Amino acid sequence: MASQLDQDQESNQSDFDLLDALRSAIDARDAELARQLAGRMLDDDALELLEDLTGHELARLFAFLGEESLGQLLARLDHRDAAGILTRMSATQAADLLEAIEPDDATDIVQVMTQNDPETAENILVAMEPEDAAEIRELMPYDEDTAGGMMTPEFVAVYPDLRADETVAALRSVAEEISNVQYVYVIDREEHLLGALSLHKLVLSPPQTPVGQLMSTEIWSVRADEDQEVAARLVTERSLLALPVVDDEGHLLGIITHDDIGEIIEEEATEDMERLGGSNPLDVPYMRATPVLLFRKRIVWLLVLFFAQFITVSIQEHYEVMLAQVTLLAVFIPILIGTGGNVGSQTVSTLIRALAVGEIQSRHVVRIIGKEALTGLLLGIVMGVLMFGRALLVGDAKDVNLAIVVGLTILVLTTWAATVGSVLPIMLSKLKMDPAVVSAPFISSFVDGTGLIIYFTLAGYLLHLG
Amino acid sequence: MASQLDQDQESNQSDFDLLDALRSAIDARDAELARQLAGRMLDDDALELLEDLTGHELARLFAFLGEESLGQLLARLDHRDAAGILTRMSATQAADLLEAIEPDDATDIVQVMTQNDPETAENILVAMEPEDAAEIRELMPYDEDTAGGMMTPEFVAVYPDLRADETVAALRSVAEEISNVQYVYVIDREEHLLGALSLHKLVLSPPQTPVGQLMSTEIWSVRADEDQEVAARLVTERSLLALPVVDDEGHLLGIITHDDIGEIIEEEATEDMERLGGSNPLDVPYMRATPVLLFRKRIVWLLVLFFAQFITVSIQEHYEVMLAQVTLLAVFIPILIGTGGNVGSQTVSTLIRALAVGEIQSRHVVRIIGKEALTGLLLGIVMGVLMFGRALLVGDAKDVNLAIVVGLTILVLTTWAATVGSVLPIMLSKLKMDPAVVSAPFISSFVDGTGLIIYFTLAGYLLHLG
Repeated sequence: MASQLDQDQESNQSDFDLLDALRSAIDARDAELARQLAGRMLDDDALELLEDLTGHELARLFAFLGEESLGQLLARLDHRDAAGILTRMSATQAADLLEAIEPDDATDIVQVMTQNDPETAENILVAMEPEDAAEIRELMPYDEDTAGGMMTPEFVAVYPDLRADETVAALRSVAEEISNVQYVYVIDREEHLLGALSLHKLVLSPPQTPVGQLMSTEIWSVRADEDQEVAARLVTERSLLALPVVDDEGHLLGIITHDDIGEIIEEEATEDMERLGGSNPLDVPYMRATPVLLFRKRIVWLLVLFFAQFITVSIQEHYEVMLAQVTLLAVFIPILIGTGGNVGSQTVSTLIRALAVGEIQSRHVVRIIGKEALTGLLLGIVMGVLMFGRALLVGDAKDVNLAIVVGLTILVLTTWAATVGSVLPIMLSKLKMDPAVVSAPFISSFVDGTGLIIYFTLAGYLLHLG
Repeated sequence: MASQLDQDQESNQSDFDLLDALRSAIDARDAELARQLAGRMLDDDALELLEDLTGHELARLFAFLGEESLGQLLARLDHRDAAGILTRMSATQAADLLEAIEPDDATDIVQVMTQNDPETAENILVAMEPEDAAEIRELMPYDEDTAGGMMTPEFVAVYPDLRADETVAALRSVAEEISNVQYVYVIDREEHLLGALSLHKLVLSPPQTPVGQLMSTEIWSVRADEDQEVAARLVTERSLLALPVVDDEGHLLGIITHDDIGEIIEEEATEDMERLGGSNPLDVPYMRATPVLLFRKRIVWLLVLFFAQFITVSIQEHYEVMLAQVTLLAVFIPILIGTGGNVGSQTVSTLIRALAVGEIQSRHVVRIIGKEALTGLLLGIVMGVLMFGRALLVGDAKDVNLAIVVGLTILVLTTWAATVGSVLPIMLSKLKMDPAVVSAPFISSFVDGTGLIIYFTLAGYLLHLG
């Protein structure tokens, strides 16, 4: 352990060294070295170090790297960090950088700046090329987590009577502005989306054919206010390269490109996993989260569970007479409720994930609960026999009846935990609520209370207590 | 609840209705209706119903839908299910279907068939077009979870001296076989990968230019034996459309296309989430998992934790004298270890996810542990005060000292749980082990045992027991 920490201090040191080296390179106006060091930051996932540079140092780095390279680095950063950096630069440099970043990412950054410092944000937008600024202003109203917030207005749309070769010529003329075309969209004069065709198809079809004849009209699209997760799932399941985004009347507003999809899926899985652990989603990269933020995200569920556990305390108080009669009963409480909680946690995590990726629908509820209850029973038989054996070894009395109580409790409790762990998420999903609120700690706490009742009821009956 | 179940039986019913309707349509040779019903199964995520059709019914469905449509349906199914269906069809029909499926997906299916019934698999391969069969045979040796297992051999590679317009002409000639080209790869005469250029660039550049001058040589690639997760992360982080796969000597073997990436990311997140819940990954879609499989995946960790909890039992036995002196001590055990377990679970889930998506590296260990310990302390102060207040209400004695013990235990325990919950995953990651083995149940059990020691030590000291 000591050597682990030593090594780590070395590596931490090297983060600071990297920053120092970059500062020296900037001071010495060594553009080539600065470029190399920025590249190393990218490779080491240490771009957040850029945040520590002063406005003056950033201005020089901009001169060395150029807007394209520096813009790409900023686009890789969390957009809150990127906003912080841009705010410290001159409006013209910040504007050049934003122009070099994809419009949907640039919009996220400007949204943060507008919240923190609307005046600076406006100055930067004014300093941008009018066209690029207009794109960002168009995207600003859409919430970050919606399809509209993920879309880019950089797409190619043509009327259906344009011929394939004319379309290729048109593409050539916008090649500078639009970095990567997968599909050409076909719209009518009112900009309603009619269809789409792939670049592949366009290039490889007879040059004289109108695109209206080449296009596919059976295409997927999403509405701008749809959740980004829905868009991501659609792109993944249907293997799309890009997904058009439309308004209520079917006007084409923008497209979501495949390169955003991986990010969305990762983001959603991160949120689900944090919820499963019993915390509210952080919504920021971990290294940005302060202890106060971590505290705020965790205390809510902790308090809910804490008050729920008061019930557990009351239940145990209720059975205090029994505990006083047979103090050995208390010895088994942790292992009993622990095992019940573990089975509940296993069940819940499996089912919440299966619901999230659409492997199960709530209409399968009867089959699922049956399967889980049976699994819980199987686990209970094995664990109950083991528990019985272990309980025989506890205390001097070698009390067979106590061992039976403990073994039987495990059997009933694992079956119960697996059943509850499957019923709760599916019920929530049926009620259109997020099943992920049934976290591992939630189900454990729930099983704790009910487990004690099962335990003491069996004990009272089989040991003739109470 | 009753109405939930009723509704569900209705929906379940409708699954069977759908199957019945499809069977009737097949019987009545109503191709159009069969097509519609198959489409509805796709929309309802109910394709697994196809498994229930007999070989005879499948043969007719094949005739109605054609190999392209039915192949697409099969490709959307889990490949174990698809293998089962193909095995029930004639070798020629199965061969036609496999030809219509992307080679990487088709290979996964054939791999399953080869394991279950090598003779049938071989017959189907022999019945296929020699070229398509050769592609599958080439991909067979690669493990499903590696870059090689995800790649398709359907890519376009040319020599550097071919001109742009000649390349487009060449593309046109293979348009039939290769469904969607994003990049053209450039190789030397020994098939070493030299560079790549996008279709976009190819079409929009001067027609006479050799591709060797148009290509980008700074391209990302992965080795065939690399983990699929590495490939997926690379494609997502660098926003690639496709990723070339090479062997040890840099020969181009195939490409991973963007449409597989979402699936990989989802698969890996599912595994992590199942592990976090304290179960081994299922590796099959939930609806395919039998209770016996669920049992097998869960019993392992359950037993490990069970035996670990024996230590907890021993600890509590050790303090039995103390418990006999102050039976009220037992009342607080569930809420104390419950809260400690909850904090541990919150910490572990956040950190395991941050490690998985690369937001933190093990070199940040000192900063992370400091942050988590401080967060645990903040949580402990709030929860400790609340616990103290609640403990004052328990029993008749209104024992202030007992309340202090209980409140203080929460304070120490949450700090301890947050610290351990951050140290363990990072240590495992440093040791190149999967940090996800520190599941929520694991950390809860760990905190249970140590929590009891903290509790009884504080009680012994402050209440003068023992």
